[in-house]
Amino acid sequence: LVSVLSSALIVYRLPWTWKCSKLLMKFIHAGLNTIAMILAIVSMVAVFEYHNARNIPNMYSLHSWIGLTAVIFYSLQLFLGFAIFLLPFAPVPLRAALMPIHVYSGLTIFAAVIATALMGITEKLIFSLKTPSYSASPPEATFVNCLGLLLVIFGALILWMASRPHWKRPPEENAKILRPIGGTPEGTEAESTMTDGSNGDKSDLRINSEAARKQNLKPDEACQRSTM
Amino acid sequence: LVSVLSSALIVYRLPWTWKCSKLLMKFIHAGLNTIAMILAIVSMVAVFEYHNARNIPNMYSLHSWIGLTAVIFYSLQLFLGFAIFLLPFAPVPLRAALMPIHVYSGLTIFAAVIATALMGITEKLIFSLKTPSYSASPPEATFVNCLGLLLVIFGALILWMASRPHWKRPPEENAKILRPIGGTPEGTEAESTMTDGSNGDKSDLRINSEAARKQNLKPDEACQRSTM
Repeated sequence: LVSVLSSALIVYRLPWTWKCSKLLMKFIHAGLNTIAMILAIVSMVAVFEYHNARNIPNMYSLHSWIGLTAVIFYSLQLFLGFAIFLLPFAPVPLRAALMPIHVYSGLTIFAAVIATALMGITEKLIFSLKTPSYSASPPEATFVNCLGLLLVIFGALILWMASRPHWKRPPEENAKILRPIGGTPEGTEAESTMTDGSNGDKSDLRINSEAARKQNLKPDEACQRSTM
Repeated sequence: LVSVLSSALIVYRLPWTWKCSKLLMKFIHAGLNTIAMILAIVSMVAVFEYHNARNIPNMYSLHSWIGLTAVIFYSLQLFLGFAIFLLPFAPVPLRAALMPIHVYSGLTIFAAVIATALMGITEKLIFSLKTPSYSASPPEATFVNCLGLLLVIFGALILWMASRPHWKRPPEENAKILRPIGGTPEGTEAESTMTDGSNGDKSDLRINSEAARKQNLKPDEACQRSTM
């Protein structure tokens, strides 16, 4: 779940995808988040069934409270993201105004999911390790603690990637060059994400659009070549 | 601890402090973080002494691992922040290059501290509530769960404030206007924080520096008036 979520988060931050059309990347972003949502629902159902089968009460722990809050906000985020940024009805100023909130919510939900996982790991270690107990530091406890620490490092790296201005997908100028008919107004959203300044982007964009012009390919053909 | 930490984080984000000199605000930021560090050390010593007095092993839980990692990075952050941004020796390009890392590290350490607190709450509730147990949801458990949820909401709000471009302290142009002698090069750092774009800032800055010029006050006099 966390890996799908994080790949969904950084999908715009991979320079080799900047050749792909914005719409294709949006579909990948929405698709990965939909997969993550399905996994979240499946795992929640599994937890409830496990609790019911063992007569353990549901939703008593802080882990469950924050986890459910995160999932509720995540489904809201997914629904609003779909309605505003994927469907072609929302006007560009609305998209531009809501994009910083969308980015902030996405990153905050991601951080909340990691915090929930850490609480879940803590609970599980306390409840499962009895002889020897968690406090006796059996190898299993040390191993799972290492996994928890790696999860934090992984989350911190993803948040670093998602907040660097020079790793931001450059605005859709090359699309306008390559597709003179039907220039969609989607490119304008990119300007107003969490990290607004994009001095570093401009040179990358120039290189990128020049390369695309030389190859004389449609963006998605270039995209397919680079992803193959 | 969390409240001192977060007030240290957002101290540059309070528009009524933009009249204060950059140096004064830096001292407040460094001072609050030093207080938070002292509180963290005092509480860690208290935990070790409590564990030793009760013959509980130290440093076995994921809570303690991530907590100690956060404190180590926090002391590193404090030391480097002091050496690079407060002492007058580091050159401006180095300050500008390190500022985004300083901001990212600060926010990530803050998020890690909140995650540690949540794990600590989870552990404490499991270990302390026995009859009735945590899973029976006694009023105490519900109350502390609410506190944990409020901690997450509070953390999310602080991260929102700290990442909005238009709440960023504007660059130190009014200082140059007001203090023609000894124009310190400190103002330039502000440009390269997490949120680089600052279209919203410019108008605020203009209003701010015009107001300061009209009042014909030194920045810290205006600052004292606005904070009194």
